[in-house]
Amino acid sequence: MEEEMVENKQVTFKDYIAEGPPKETDMEVRVSKIELKPPEKGSGGLLVKNLYLSCDPYMRGRMRDYHSSYIPPFLPAQPIQGFGISKVLASDNPDYKAGDLISGFTSWEGYSFIYSFDRLRKIEQDEHIPLSLHLGLLGMPGFTAYAGFYEVCSPKKGDYVFVSAASGAVGQLVGQFAKLHGCYVVGSAGTNLKVDLLKNKFGFDEAFNYKQEPNLDAALKRYFPQGIDIYFDNVGGDMLDAALLNMRIHGRIAVCGMISVNSLSAAQGIHNLFNLISKRIKMQGFLQSDYVHLYEPFLKQVSDDYKQGKIVYLEDMTEGLENGPAALVGLFSGKNVGKQVIRVARD
Amino acid sequence: MEEEMVENKQVTFKDYIAEGPPKETDMEVRVSKIELKPPEKGSGGLLVKNLYLSCDPYMRGRMRDYHSSYIPPFLPAQPIQGFGISKVLASDNPDYKAGDLISGFTSWEGYSFIYSFDRLRKIEQDEHIPLSLHLGLLGMPGFTAYAGFYEVCSPKKGDYVFVSAASGAVGQLVGQFAKLHGCYVVGSAGTNLKVDLLKNKFGFDEAFNYKQEPNLDAALKRYFPQGIDIYFDNVGGDMLDAALLNMRIHGRIAVCGMISVNSLSAAQGIHNLFNLISKRIKMQGFLQSDYVHLYEPFLKQVSDDYKQGKIVYLEDMTEGLENGPAALVGLFSGKNVGKQVIRVARD
Repeated sequence: MEEEMVENKQVTFKDYIAEGPPKETDMEVRVSKIELKPPEKGSGGLLVKNLYLSCDPYMRGRMRDYHSSYIPPFLPAQPIQGFGISKVLASDNPDYKAGDLISGFTSWEGYSFIYSFDRLRKIEQDEHIPLSLHLGLLGMPGFTAYAGFYEVCSPKKGDYVFVSAASGAVGQLVGQFAKLHGCYVVGSAGTNLKVDLLKNKFGFDEAFNYKQEPNLDAALKRYFPQGIDIYFDNVGGDMLDAALLNMRIHGRIAVCGMISVNSLSAAQGIHNLFNLISKRIKMQGFLQSDYVHLYEPFLKQVSDDYKQGKIVYLEDMTEGLENGPAALVGLFSGKNVGKQVIRVARD
Repeated sequence: MEEEMVENKQVTFKDYIAEGPPKETDMEVRVSKIELKPPEKGSGGLLVKNLYLSCDPYMRGRMRDYHSSYIPPFLPAQPIQGFGISKVLASDNPDYKAGDLISGFTSWEGYSFIYSFDRLRKIEQDEHIPLSLHLGLLGMPGFTAYAGFYEVCSPKKGDYVFVSAASGAVGQLVGQFAKLHGCYVVGSAGTNLKVDLLKNKFGFDEAFNYKQEPNLDAALKRYFPQGIDIYFDNVGGDMLDAALLNMRIHGRIAVCGMISVNSLSAAQGIHNLFNLISKRIKMQGFLQSDYVHLYEPFLKQVSDDYKQGKIVYLEDMTEGLENGPAALVGLFSGKNVGKQVIRVARD
């Protein structure tokens, strides 16, 4: 490669965020310089150009000054870390070569040096699958939906399935998996547009706008007069409490995300856990990273289903790294319609 | 048998109880008459003399005017229903004969006619096992501990196990099962006497009085610096919330009873469920009645362990049906030390 000094746009957090959802003013877009040169010999590193970056709810957890058991916090004034799709420009690693496309952890900037290969994968390009889908359909959210639905929920044909945040990166797939499995599926979302998408694009049997429901328990009783076998919980909070009241005996709750808890400190608490006993409910938290042994079958099944038109996937594409902060902030107020992705560069 | 009209002491609830723990004044002890005569031909029934009656936390649920999914409410002014040990005086059922000892649902009275055999079992008498233990060690609480610990908790040798209400009918056994399984076991209870029993009679590694702990999270961190693999939850509420903060990755929570929710309507809610995700915790409610296929192996293992002195079991025996209301009320304030039983008659 030709070595040259270029501008490198970066997005950083100014500081840790203790409470509430992130705001655009918590972030900074700056332009630094980077010398495009091969990684040092023996470093095993890659120099990459970032093409797509992913906005995901779990990132809220990394904004706190708290070392959780599974992922470290974002460092203030350092480019945000996140899932991305990148093109290798130069490699000191025998497993990768210039021109390879990879997905995995990268940084919110134009170009990055990568030395950690923990969750990195080489992308087998397929002309029928848009590259960005490796952040959603075929990425962490898609795999979360797959592992959560098939492994955690123990689905059976005919099960009554409820999905919250159902038009999101994970929910839209859970609902489609459940339909393909022969289940009856209802989703909730926060706008009428999303409700419309759930019913008319993703093929849910029913959907409702939770913001227009004064009583979530009554809403669930209306859509599930027979009760719920599987609740795929993407939100926690009041919706979880209402679902607990409407579970059937031996119901399963997959606890996937709790945006309402992630963002709001003044949670009013969950009051209906006594239903766990009388209905013998299994409630299980999970992370897709525990199921890596299923990644290959997932990739094959979902790629095939997508190419055969059995599954659709909706992305909300934001153009330009400078619009990254707005995209990330929008995720926590439900502004995105479908999987939120930032296009940094086209190739 | 010789037919005769005798006095039949009975304990009833005056009405349903919506909120709070039961009070002695909610109950009535009355003396009616019963004619001791064989059940009608073709009825399939039994006439029994009740010897021991069981006081169990689940009974709080039956005091409400609410038909839950698994058990109907107590009828006001009718003798309370509950587990008991009875002697058959006369039988119209070919499976039972006069003199048989049985355990199962009977009524809080001196003599009962029984026509429902749903959970009834004939007791194989063993001179080394006191009869009343068929209400605790070898009855529903013992089987709850067995199914909950071995089936729901997936215990492994070396696991860190926490048991709440640990000196109660279920908890004392869970802790002993866990010790026999090679686990490290800590229990919580509400008096220093109970804490002493846990450590010195039941062989728990450690125990603490939760009423003397201003901060349950800090208490659990003190006893489990490495965290908790298994929480056998007999109480719900604040203790569950604190345990959630201290679970280890892939921890299991068996949700067995929630006295604090059963009795108190002003529960402040559970706030720490987000730990389910980051630690991939399985939280499962269960009822022993789903595991009846394991009853025979349970009976054999626990009888043997008891006779060999590997397991001890503590009962709190109240003498006389007229003291039944006080015994039942005491259960909900933790007055009992060990499994609460009422002795109605010696034989």
